[in-house]
Amino acid sequence: MNSKRNVYLDMKSIEETEKILFDHFKHMVTKIETLDVVDAKGRVLAGPAMAAISSPNFHAAAMDGIAVDAKITFGARQDAPITLCPDKNAFWVNTGHAMPKGTNAVIMIEHLNIIDKKNVEIEAPVFPWQHVRKMGEDIVATQLLFPQGHMINAHSLGALLSGGIFRVAVYKKPKVLIIPTGSELKQWHEININQLKPGDVVESNSCVLGGLCEDHGAQFDRHPMLKDNLENIKKAVEKAAKQNYDMILIIGGSSAGSEDFAKPVISSLGEIYVHGVTMMPGKPMMFGKVFDTPIFGIPGYPVSAIVAFEQFAGPLLLNMQKLPKKEIISVLVSPARKIASKLGLEEFLRMKIGSVDDKLVASQLPRGSGSITTLTEADGIIRIPTNIEGISENQKVRAQLLRPLSSIENTIVITGSHDNTLDILADQIKGVSSDISVSSSHVGSMGGLMAIKKGTCHMAGAHLLDPVDGSYNISYIKKYLPDQKVWVINLVMRDQGLIVPKTNPENIQSIKDLKDKGLKFINRQPGSGTRILFDYKLKTLGISINDIQGYENDEYTHMSVAVAVLSGRADAGLGIQAAARALDLDFIPVVTEEYDLIIPDRFYKTKKIQTLLDIIQTKKFQKRIQALGGYGIQNTGKIIYS
Amino acid sequence: MNSKRNVYLDMKSIEETEKILFDHFKHMVTKIETLDVVDAKGRVLAGPAMAAISSPNFHAAAMDGIAVDAKITFGARQDAPITLCPDKNAFWVNTGHAMPKGTNAVIMIEHLNIIDKKNVEIEAPVFPWQHVRKMGEDIVATQLLFPQGHMINAHSLGALLSGGIFRVAVYKKPKVLIIPTGSELKQWHEININQLKPGDVVESNSCVLGGLCEDHGAQFDRHPMLKDNLENIKKAVEKAAKQNYDMILIIGGSSAGSEDFAKPVISSLGEIYVHGVTMMPGKPMMFGKVFDTPIFGIPGYPVSAIVAFEQFAGPLLLNMQKLPKKEIISVLVSPARKIASKLGLEEFLRMKIGSVDDKLVASQLPRGSGSITTLTEADGIIRIPTNIEGISENQKVRAQLLRPLSSIENTIVITGSHDNTLDILADQIKGVSSDISVSSSHVGSMGGLMAIKKGTCHMAGAHLLDPVDGSYNISYIKKYLPDQKVWVINLVMRDQGLIVPKTNPENIQSIKDLKDKGLKFINRQPGSGTRILFDYKLKTLGISINDIQGYENDEYTHMSVAVAVLSGRADAGLGIQAAARALDLDFIPVVTEEYDLIIPDRFYKTKKIQTLLDIIQTKKFQKRIQALGGYGIQNTGKIIYS
Repeated sequence: MNSKRNVYLDMKSIEETEKILFDHFKHMVTKIETLDVVDAKGRVLAGPAMAAISSPNFHAAAMDGIAVDAKITFGARQDAPITLCPDKNAFWVNTGHAMPKGTNAVIMIEHLNIIDKKNVEIEAPVFPWQHVRKMGEDIVATQLLFPQGHMINAHSLGALLSGGIFRVAVYKKPKVLIIPTGSELKQWHEININQLKPGDVVESNSCVLGGLCEDHGAQFDRHPMLKDNLENIKKAVEKAAKQNYDMILIIGGSSAGSEDFAKPVISSLGEIYVHGVTMMPGKPMMFGKVFDTPIFGIPGYPVSAIVAFEQFAGPLLLNMQKLPKKEIISVLVSPARKIASKLGLEEFLRMKIGSVDDKLVASQLPRGSGSITTLTEADGIIRIPTNIEGISENQKVRAQLLRPLSSIENTIVITGSHDNTLDILADQIKGVSSDISVSSSHVGSMGGLMAIKKGTCHMAGAHLLDPVDGSYNISYIKKYLPDQKVWVINLVMRDQGLIVPKTNPENIQSIKDLKDKGLKFINRQPGSGTRILFDYKLKTLGISINDIQGYENDEYTHMSVAVAVLSGRADAGLGIQAAARALDLDFIPVVTEEYDLIIPDRFYKTKKIQTLLDIIQTKKFQKRIQALGGYGIQNTGKIIYS
Repeated sequence: MNSKRNVYLDMKSIEETEKILFDHFKHMVTKIETLDVVDAKGRVLAGPAMAAISSPNFHAAAMDGIAVDAKITFGARQDAPITLCPDKNAFWVNTGHAMPKGTNAVIMIEHLNIIDKKNVEIEAPVFPWQHVRKMGEDIVATQLLFPQGHMINAHSLGALLSGGIFRVAVYKKPKVLIIPTGSELKQWHEININQLKPGDVVESNSCVLGGLCEDHGAQFDRHPMLKDNLENIKKAVEKAAKQNYDMILIIGGSSAGSEDFAKPVISSLGEIYVHGVTMMPGKPMMFGKVFDTPIFGIPGYPVSAIVAFEQFAGPLLLNMQKLPKKEIISVLVSPARKIASKLGLEEFLRMKIGSVDDKLVASQLPRGSGSITTLTEADGIIRIPTNIEGISENQKVRAQLLRPLSSIENTIVITGSHDNTLDILADQIKGVSSDISVSSSHVGSMGGLMAIKKGTCHMAGAHLLDPVDGSYNISYIKKYLPDQKVWVINLVMRDQGLIVPKTNPENIQSIKDLKDKGLKFINRQPGSGTRILFDYKLKTLGISINDIQGYENDEYTHMSVAVAVLSGRADAGLGIQAAARALDLDFIPVVTEEYDLIIPDRFYKTKKIQTLLDIIQTKKFQKRIQALGGYGIQNTGKIIYS
């Protein structure tokens, strides 16, 4: 029974939390170590780098030719050449050679008439110091090459070595101990994925945070997984704090539940400065100090963990070794639809960003902080301040980019109906052209048409059945996109049918059985082609939607419908065969339908769209589709309408 | 004698060279290796990553509370609560737990009235799937997590592990062999810098290029230094090409001199595709193939070497492992003065960039490709195409940034007279505030005043003597900046005098001796305060400039004057005592002068300028100045004029 519950301390804003964090730890800097310069790339100088020698440290020939004292060339003319005597008053030099004593200019070999080994003629004078790199031209001994706090990059190595600095004092890399906790978690190397039990979760946060530590210039050790046990976690933290770690991260148990031990552990060994930040994801974050070591309670949901790290722990690690803050690149984007936001929390919304018609359109990914894919699929993040309730559709807003703008500009945005072949398309295009990417959003066939109308995508996937004549898409295009010239290209023919559990235990034969046997159905969202198909089938069968149990429960993709069946949430759902096969479920065919790509004319001719259309035509692509099952390729790549 | 000379093949433009390079090596990709996911950060997927399991792979509680079948809660009201029986029809769960069989909703603990261990009341119904993370909500088994060609970052690790992918096939890191050549070069670890002989040069290119290889995802081996010897270099290349290196870089000897062996080595073992690129620095670059291994002849001048690598070898290394191109961040800048450029060569001009009055002002650094500091001191690079002769002062032009814009925006631009204490100021400000930097350009005192007039700096360093009343700076400000309110703050009082060789072999006592003894003088550039001082002194002594040998030879800094004396180019120069002391030269005092900072009022009150002025007031700064010698701090930090 859950009676012991922690209570959040006062929640703090992000700004307040940053202030409290840096007020406590700003002056915490790692020790200084002295390294060979060649091993110091990426490190920060702990003191000024003053050149020990000049570079060049002698006057050097800057050309291949003959070195002379310029004075002896004065007066040379074409009609009155002067003869130089090598090894007497002139000396052969190559670029980089030290200038022989008494010389101060080089005459290029191209300007010499070589008479014989002992006589060389010149027809023009040279100026003193012509074609000579003077001593100290690059670096003068004692000059400041880099101030303290300079981060050494590859170029810096050249200046340091040339200036005779071979060893440098730099800040040590901070060392972080990551302690993953959670009784439900299993480490990846202990797992046989074919034997996962319900409740088993693959521990991934410690690896992600380890990677982020490295990205912030730190080293990390990963503590063995700990179950949710106060004493064990406490022992581990106490031991770590007595070792020379510069930071401790406890992952999991940072919330206020009965098995959340981060807070009691930290407060019993040290002090908590903040518990609870008015941000989402990442709200149940905490930090404090145990024996002078900063310690964070990092939430267990993966996106929360990342936000908590990147917002607070990461910047502190950079500061410890005087590395500069991470540069944030941001752009103005237009939300594809209006965005609601909670008052009182600063929200980090993960967005897909597409460049359409020179406008950056941002579509929101799901908010769930438990879904790592909402971050890995995101192109950018919009932060909505605590006091804003949302953003309207026509308002431009700043988004922090997670990948380069050029990559976003080379992405084909496909919006509309979901189909598994889009994954294959996305993969195959990267094999052909590493620049071009595909980003697809699943908003249903009608949603795709509306996205074309609003100019927020390059193409839409659709399979909209016209109940009158049995055609697909064309009548919808005429109705909803009357003013646009579009091309309709068939991607696949596909079998839609009932996805049912393996071995079909309810012995379902048709849609009619759903009503007759009183089975639990899982529906697709309104506006999806599959829902339109289902409604059409119900109508022809004379079945009311009220007779279908679960009609009101919907999912956005075929795969989610299949998962609902696999997990027992539903007895059946309407979807494509490929989804059933992917999860090893049974499938009762209902109809073969046309799934097309609808492409506005202004995009059709562009290079990236043509690259995509070329791929659709390839045998390789079509073979991969057929391997999924339930697809027909007889029309694949054909122009259906233009 | 230099009779054997290579001849450049046809020079190619950068674009042509890129095309030839990629035509030959585009399809060269490193082998594929399979790694544990946790070791694959920074690598590129060689195939699509499809999820092996769903995440969660069960329905999971999303809150702490009690799990129920939602149906049994229907009808619960405040005045008609429903009683649940834990372990019978309701089950305690914590966030992340698997939902017990038969349940589909969680009631938060906050919404429960706990009567006793066996009875819990609820006063409201719950919806099915409320507070439940449904199976597959994040990842559905078989779904595409990442396409081939995806670069794995820290976040990706989370998605891969959660999707049950524990090992991945990725492209191997390319392996590069770097062969430094050049008889004049010494490796840093063989050098005692106190025993450098004229002609000795510290080899630094192989370290810089090694660092750049790492920055481009490659590993490198560094071959021992080779003297300029055809057979030895050939042997080394032949051996390397038979090993499994993915690329060979020969540094040095890529030009057309008699000791330039890169070309004969490559053409005798394989083929040269391009020799000579119409770019500067980097023109004498070449590449070809030896036994299927791409091989580059990299010029020996450090900036040339870097440009040749970053322009061609680096992008090829990225392509071999399917890493994305380096993102180039560029901004529009205004040149501080007009820039000339050679027709027929694409020039990479290294620029200091300052942000003054919200305008980005770019000042050109010296062009010499032998000077690594022209790159390490640069904030950005302006590329001037082959067909452009130059850029006028009022023309905005694009510059590729070498450091973040935010860092440029936090830099204090000091233009004007050179003084060694500016180095100390630049160092010390970084110790106080890692955000703020100082960038100083040495254009002489008058140049500093003109920069203030044009609005291209935040402050100027000046020591302009008024011959009429012996005052410094004020009369010049009144004359040249009549419309500006400026603040004049004393930085130091300093001794100017004659810098002469150690032990003063010519027994120089005064400026008069320069004429009387017919000595070689090294002057400062017109417009510098030191030159104005020298001219004034000559005038009071009644000496004509024609009586001073070397009057027409000038340098831009005190340190360069000192180096000219040290190296024997001159017998004496006028400069500050600190410069003489830095290079262990003798010094004959001539005058004690005032060196001030002149700061326009609109910058004076800004935080970064005030931070700088605070540092000037500190004991620590003043002590470091005094340690240089020849400085007086009696007025340091005082407001001289406002």
